[in-house]
Amino acid sequence: MARRLDLNCDMGESFGAWGMGEDAAMLDIVTSANIACGFHAGDPMVMRDTIKAAKTRGVAIGAHPGFNDLAGFGRRRISGDSPEDLTAQLIYQIAAMQGMARAFGHDMTHVKPHGALMNMACEDKAIAQACVAAIRAIDPTLIFVTLPYSVAFDVAQKAGLRVACEIYADRSYGARGQLTPRSHSGAVIHDPAQSRDQVLEMVVGGMIPTTQGTRLPVEAATLCVHGDNPQAVEIARTLRAALASEGVRFAPLRAD
Amino acid sequence: MARRLDLNCDMGESFGAWGMGEDAAMLDIVTSANIACGFHAGDPMVMRDTIKAAKTRGVAIGAHPGFNDLAGFGRRRISGDSPEDLTAQLIYQIAAMQGMARAFGHDMTHVKPHGALMNMACEDKAIAQACVAAIRAIDPTLIFVTLPYSVAFDVAQKAGLRVACEIYADRSYGARGQLTPRSHSGAVIHDPAQSRDQVLEMVVGGMIPTTQGTRLPVEAATLCVHGDNPQAVEIARTLRAALASEGVRFAPLRAD
Amino acid sequence: MARRLDLNCDMGESFGAWGMGEDAAMLDIVTSANIACGFHAGDPMVMRDTIKAAKTRGVAIGAHPGFNDLAGFGRRRISGDSPEDLTAQLIYQIAAMQGMARAFGHDMTHVKPHGALMNMACEDKAIAQACVAAIRAIDPTLIFVTLPYSVAFDVAQKAGLRVACEIYADRSYGARGQLTPRSHSGAVIHDPAQSRDQVLEMVVGGMIPTTQGTRLPVEAATLCVHGDNPQAVEIARTLRAALASEGVRFAPLRAD
Amino acid sequence: MARRLDLNCDMGESFGAWGMGEDAAMLDIVTSANIACGFHAGDPMVMRDTIKAAKTRGVAIGAHPGFNDLAGFGRRRISGDSPEDLTAQLIYQIAAMQGMARAFGHDMTHVKPHGALMNMACEDKAIAQACVAAIRAIDPTLIFVTLPYSVAFDVAQKAGLRVACEIYADRSYGARGQLTPRSHSGAVIHDPAQSRDQVLEMVVGGMIPTTQGTRLPVEAATLCVHGDNPQAVEIARTLRAALASEGVRFAPLRAD
Repeated sequence: MARRLDLNCDMGESFGAWGMGEDAAMLDIVTSANIACGFHAGDPMVMRDTIKAAKTRGVAIGAHPGFNDLAGFGRRRISGDSPEDLTAQLIYQIAAMQGMARAFGHDMTHVKPHGALMNMACEDKAIAQACVAAIRAIDPTLIFVTLPYSVAFDVAQKAGLRVACEIYADRSYGARGQLTPRSHSGAVIHDPAQSRDQVLEMVVGGMIPTTQGTRLPVEAATLCVHGDNPQAVEIARTLRAALASEGVRFAPLRAD
Repeated sequence: MARRLDLNCDMGESFGAWGMGEDAAMLDIVTSANIACGFHAGDPMVMRDTIKAAKTRGVAIGAHPGFNDLAGFGRRRISGDSPEDLTAQLIYQIAAMQGMARAFGHDMTHVKPHGALMNMACEDKAIAQACVAAIRAIDPTLIFVTLPYSVAFDVAQKAGLRVACEIYADRSYGARGQLTPRSHSGAVIHDPAQSRDQVLEMVVGGMIPTTQGTRLPVEAATLCVHGDNPQAVEIARTLRAALASEGVRFAPLRAD
Repeated sequence: MARRLDLNCDMGESFGAWGMGEDAAMLDIVTSANIACGFHAGDPMVMRDTIKAAKTRGVAIGAHPGFNDLAGFGRRRISGDSPEDLTAQLIYQIAAMQGMARAFGHDMTHVKPHGALMNMACEDKAIAQACVAAIRAIDPTLIFVTLPYSVAFDVAQKAGLRVACEIYADRSYGARGQLTPRSHSGAVIHDPAQSRDQVLEMVVGGMIPTTQGTRLPVEAATLCVHGDNPQAVEIARTLRAALASEGVRFAPLRAD
Repeated sequence: MARRLDLNCDMGESFGAWGMGEDAAMLDIVTSANIACGFHAGDPMVMRDTIKAAKTRGVAIGAHPGFNDLAGFGRRRISGDSPEDLTAQLIYQIAAMQGMARAFGHDMTHVKPHGALMNMACEDKAIAQACVAAIRAIDPTLIFVTLPYSVAFDVAQKAGLRVACEIYADRSYGARGQLTPRSHSGAVIHDPAQSRDQVLEMVVGGMIPTTQGTRLPVEAATLCVHGDNPQAVEIARTLRAALASEGVRFAPLRAD
């Protein structure tokens, strides 16, 4: 099984005078940055700075589009847009990101929806298709990052898109392979050793350990880590080192 | 002198539930559409629809970026952004427009700044340079549409950008070739015959008639017409017919 | 049964450079104006102008708060805010409206939620309570305008709020007294005579005629009419005249 | 001369998911909080939380309105609104703040414009008058906090408004009593002892020491301190203690 793994982190989520996240520190840890596109977070200056910093550190970048909801940081579910209109909103964001990346000498490799949009795409076929349609319209070789055993994953794969399966170290998985909802007890894994073991089982063993004690096959391509604060950065750094010492090799997603 | 002329109109300035402009009617009259990019007006759905309609009618399209000021429709002067930050905001908008154009099967040929941004670029070298830098970063073959005898025109030309000189039929020109400010009497020309004659003198005669009675050389490339309401559409249609009967031929801007 | 009726219309839904609705014409027809508060539509200038115009014509005014969603005109359902946070957003809007009304010499009599917020308040107890809590926090004598046989109506009445029952002339009612969803056939009544008869049956007869042929008691306080375009204005004007000729008397809501 | 002094700090400048400022710590230091009203910063939830926290700590509150410019944090100068329209935007913000304050059991005592709006009001009579008109329309007993020797101060005083003269500990004053622009050397005072002495000279001595070595009379009512980060909080705390040990007594502004 694959011992190669991408490490991704949401970045560029500052806005105007407001900072967010330890982006500089995370760029030394991850191999891919998902950059907010100005709808739920980020702005053209933040995007520019994040693209340039990622390029300098050799970190791959992707668009991290979301709902047009600065006030809610893209975490609120917004219903009422037709799939076609959602696709237009995604094309706009991905295109802005792609053009900025090129203008500042970098390439965009992937697209990972943000927050409520990702959650809805993982459950709702029409929204998943809206995401897929946007990526295909911009560049069908872009890699779609999404969760295993989700509607989004199935829809994207059937559409012939390159899909990168994203795994979490600090979240448990239910019987059907989905993340345990945060509202349930046991949703978040706090023990570093358990986190490391879960990732190893998915990356090296190729299996998701579920809360039911069962195992589901998975081809993990990228592990999501967080840079919200210095503690999160330290957890990510430690996890990377632990995985590296077990033979996991870190490299950006590749479109092969 | 050139008898070939582009006819341009600002379009795609609706936003969400709010409509603006007689875009459908104007697409039968003009050869180029300047499409708002979502900062001062427009949204991804409006951009999509305008791009598709322009393509269907064979109308060329350009980005019409402005200040991030929906509440003021990009007509308020906003001071305080560094030129680099302004460039980033313009790259974002032009990139979004370019990517959407490609996604819906059309090409973007030009960039024309909107409202207060255009006014400031015509007066202020740093802002003109910010615009030029954005266009060059996206695609140096894009045509920059701006006013003759303006700082923006000079800066763009010196930078080696392709510049299209934009003229007005319904505005008078001062001694130095600039538009008479709207606050001055005689700024707006209401007589259709006088409008037609002014355009002919600029397009066929190659000279701007000034309010001082003098004449200044000009290579008019594109004439701006308005589609704000049915009356404006009728004025534009009549003007086009009058110019056509005098031998003016209408075609989109070309990058030669 | 009551032959007195308030006529209300959503107004002040222009935004910046974008106009919406035939407000001036509607102010000659209605007795109450529900004025947008800047979150889904409207802005301080539009609010000022609408308040002043309503005062001049002797039309009562109310706050018409909605989701903070200009791009979606408040018609998209937004989920994820806690009821407390929703209450804060409503207090903000109602307070802004109340202060502006006072500043321009008018009084605010009522509150009517807009679009998706109203729809959600009519179905969801927590959201209805969030609306009620906001009104009570601002001024417990304000009248809450909402639909009969809705969760919002029940919650408000139980909380001791003054509730004005709002009826529609152009929408049919289902077996449980709710509006037939627009996605169902027969949801909209196009025949003017049928509209008039339905209103008379509700206002004079005190009964809602349902699509099942049954009748449900109702104390209709206010009839919602639309001013989206000249045709809508004409329909509203004609309906008012028809009701007046049947003895219905029009007057603003009263807090008795 | 007055030894009584108000200590004010801009607060409630977080927005959505983005935090800003050490508000909790500053509420233990200041006697007045200037709370952002949602246009340049702040949102209804932040306003609610800041009002409640200020009330709990016995800190007076005021509205801190600014330009409708989240992207620029109200620091960009925006030109083009008529004074009447600016007044409407200010009434809206102050009314929202006042209504929220009442809803959460607190009173609003003052109004202090933010950033570019304050700067422009201190230089431009029409903008100063727009601010004054807004305060008078909401409540003529509200105290207007602004800089000495400014256009805003003169205009407000002549209009009969209660004006509180705001001083700075860390900024030097030019020959005419205005703050030295930040672009000039010597604009910012870094030495704590010099800061303390400057404040004492203004508060106890009643004179502004200028960079020209001259002195100008002043009736200092409130001292502005900053809570941007833990260092700023420590500077403010130390300054308060130093002034207290010199006999300065701290209390909120009073409308007498």
